[in-house]
Amino acid sequence: MKLNNTDLKNLDRINRIKIINAVSGIKPGNLIGTIDNEGSTNLAIFSSVVHLGSDPALLGFILRPTGEVPRNTFDNILANKSYTINHIHPEFTKNAHYTSAKFDASISEFERCGLTEEYIDTCKAPFVKESRFKMGMQFIEALPIKQNNTLLVIGEITSLILPDTSFESSEDINLEEINSVGISGLNSYYYVTKMAEYPYVRTNEVPKF
Amino acid sequence: MKLNNTDLKNLDRINRIKIINAVSGIKPGNLIGTIDNEGSTNLAIFSSVVHLGSDPALLGFILRPTGEVPRNTFDNILANKSYTINHIHPEFTKNAHYTSAKFDASISEFERCGLTEEYIDTCKAPFVKESRFKMGMQFIEALPIKQNNTLLVIGEITSLILPDTSFESSEDINLEEINSVGISGLNSYYYVTKMAEYPYVRTNEVPKF
Repeated sequence: MKLNNTDLKNLDRINRIKIINAVSGIKPGNLIGTIDNEGSTNLAIFSSVVHLGSDPALLGFILRPTGEVPRNTFDNILANKSYTINHIHPEFTKNAHYTSAKFDASISEFERCGLTEEYIDTCKAPFVKESRFKMGMQFIEALPIKQNNTLLVIGEITSLILPDTSFESSEDINLEEINSVGISGLNSYYYVTKMAEYPYVRTNEVPKF
Repeated sequence: MKLNNTDLKNLDRINRIKIINAVSGIKPGNLIGTIDNEGSTNLAIFSSVVHLGSDPALLGFILRPTGEVPRNTFDNILANKSYTINHIHPEFTKNAHYTSAKFDASISEFERCGLTEEYIDTCKAPFVKESRFKMGMQFIEALPIKQNNTLLVIGEITSLILPDTSFESSEDINLEEINSVGISGLNSYYYVTKMAEYPYVRTNEVPKF
């Protein structure tokens, strides 16, 4: 099936959102934890966390228009420059999904959605205790994407909590063993299963195809 | 295992790249196809395609520093504003992986890596014929990320080619049926398997946790 520019513009809103949220392929499932300066915590699900670079260790995520609805996550990040990114696992995917409800700022999604706050000395924001792979982040900058009033929120990893077994292999960290879930569209969650690993590519070692 | 800021800075380069490329969780596997104004084509694997918004339908991807090595993909995008994003499937994941070799600009990764160019009227850049889910893109803007000299390349979807069955269900498009692969780290590829689907969240319908 081929859809051109006009077909895309004529899609009804629900089909449009359903399809365009799937076109990029599988998306990582993460919970972003924050806290305001009065100690109220916030937790929100994001599928747009993206690797920006390894040295410095930078991650980005896309934030919807800040004027649209109250954005507790971003307000909290601006207030104290601290946030956490926590992988989602099957045991609490349903809990994670429901953090997308528009709760009042006075309600913590941790408590309402049955997840546990965890703190370490070097990070003000709360981690999700149930997550096995998580990062403490220092906010750096929010780049405006003027075409749709979203923001690319850029932060540096300042702490990393991951399973002890992650370094046992010389290979890439195995996301199947850690059992981190993927997202497609707005509501669908996926297991990931290791399929193959290929060597770092040197131009003189490319096989014949 | 907990790593703080200093531990992260002291990681050897290989471990650092291996770990930091995995921390965001599962990444989508896509091939980006381009063509220069003399008709030479280029194809490159990217794991950083990210959904920016549905109306207009915008996608971004992260491009490594343009001064570092020749960036045929970006030169071609700037030349004619056209590119394609093509999902990767298991049948040609190995071919896709080897497009990351630093071939000379005169060598097309399509030919060298055994993939087939496909064209439609409304898009100058070549699609990957073997891909079942793909987008023709119009370049809009490249936002500089000054912390590491990368770019967020922003484009609008102008055509969409996807399986006829994608609209049969009222649910999200099923990436397991389309069999689009995920990536973690630099070299590891994953199948995705549907785990669960939860309803759009209305605040008064959140279950007790």
